[in-house]
Amino acid sequence: MIIIGEKLNSSIPSVHEAIEKRDVAFVQDLARRQEEAGAHYLDINAGMFVEQECEHLRWLMQTVQEATTLPLVIDTPDPAVASVLAKEYKGEKPIINSVTLEQNRFEPMLQAALENHTGLVALCMDDSGVPDGVERRIQLAGELVERLTKEGLSREDIYLDPMVRPAGSGEAYGLEALDSIRGIREKLPDIHIVCGLSNISFGLPKRALINRTFLVAAMTVGLDSAIMDPLNRELMASLYAANAVLGKDEYCIEYLGAYREELL
Amino acid sequence: MIIIGEKLNSSIPSVHEAIEKRDVAFVQDLARRQEEAGAHYLDINAGMFVEQECEHLRWLMQTVQEATTLPLVIDTPDPAVASVLAKEYKGEKPIINSVTLEQNRFEPMLQAALENHTGLVALCMDDSGVPDGVERRIQLAGELVERLTKEGLSREDIYLDPMVRPAGSGEAYGLEALDSIRGIREKLPDIHIVCGLSNISFGLPKRALINRTFLVAAMTVGLDSAIMDPLNRELMASLYAANAVLGKDEYCIEYLGAYREELL
Repeated sequence: MIIIGEKLNSSIPSVHEAIEKRDVAFVQDLARRQEEAGAHYLDINAGMFVEQECEHLRWLMQTVQEATTLPLVIDTPDPAVASVLAKEYKGEKPIINSVTLEQNRFEPMLQAALENHTGLVALCMDDSGVPDGVERRIQLAGELVERLTKEGLSREDIYLDPMVRPAGSGEAYGLEALDSIRGIREKLPDIHIVCGLSNISFGLPKRALINRTFLVAAMTVGLDSAIMDPLNRELMASLYAANAVLGKDEYCIEYLGAYREELL
Repeated sequence: MIIIGEKLNSSIPSVHEAIEKRDVAFVQDLARRQEEAGAHYLDINAGMFVEQECEHLRWLMQTVQEATTLPLVIDTPDPAVASVLAKEYKGEKPIINSVTLEQNRFEPMLQAALENHTGLVALCMDDSGVPDGVERRIQLAGELVERLTKEGLSREDIYLDPMVRPAGSGEAYGLEALDSIRGIREKLPDIHIVCGLSNISFGLPKRALINRTFLVAAMTVGLDSAIMDPLNRELMASLYAANAVLGKDEYCIEYLGAYREELL
């Protein structure tokens, strides 16, 4: 399971303030704590700054890269920002988050990834917006992989995101997400599938409970990476336990190690 | 999800003592608390008493039936005990736990169920003991359903148990259990699948964490009933959350109700 730390995001008020004030200590501490908690990548996002997104995200990237050697996920809907920052980025291969099938976004985002040898999160959506239903998501996933690889992106550099909708906002949006992950995994067994975990619990109480429950269910049907909060102890404990029951941790060796380190 | 309360079991020392001492208040309190916590059935087991199993299980059954109208799961490997007690049982249709394909057990246990119009837990095993691997479990499940229904048992009265082995005792026994449940669900979409939930965590630390994680994963692949501890608050919270993300709780109405009742 690839853990992408979600905390360095300008939609979190304390992080927004830290970016605005250029609070190096706050940002670097948050980077280091996510690394220590087990993150494999750190997502960085300054989308709330809109017009000044590029300068703020650049500062965030540089500041985080001084604190950790973890690879980053450059999280922006703007191909120009992604392209500039991926060029300036130093270190282990980053991921750009994200491309879609939208006409204005597909080609420039793909070029940003190809020119800078990055991974690429690919959202299952096109110009008609967030898709409705399972079949459409699976179809868009297939189309994304076909078009991205045709233009030269490696299969292992693609992270498909099925676009999870909040479980409380529709009849059975949780099941829609799980059936989409299952269907994409069956059709494309070798492609990473990722999601922004906390989308599932939007609007519900006890969000952390929903998030960790969905994580276990989604891993059971084929999710292999998630943008999530590695500082949430119960979420990480659920992940260790899920690896143990899903046969991803033979004889539960890692689970027992986590227990000894008092992480469960 | 059908919740079968597991607490009235002579393998639990305090319950063993209560049965031995004929402690009516203790047993009835445990029955009522499981009912209040959301159990749909109560499992009763006096297997630790071996030679005196029948008289102890009879007392337990009568004592519990004075306290609750919940249907019971008569838990014994002995067809003679099952037959006698199912005959004496009053009230809503019980379940006998369990039949296997063992030569000495299959026919008399099936007759006990048929004569007394009970449900029947059917363990995926025969005279060669607990099976090895997923395919063998699916094969035994098919054989059980075929033979049980051929002799007149209704499909809705069968509760297949895939025989979960502890996740920590083999290379990937958790995955074996999950793949077995998935395979049985695909082959037999209309048959109940049950398991004794706590088997999965035997020998591991933080058993409750493993149990609730496995519950979510198993529900995701088709488990629809479990012998489990309804008094474990976090386990029940995981069940509410699982129903919410698995599309078994439209718009998360029951989840929100559980939150308002402070059950999460």
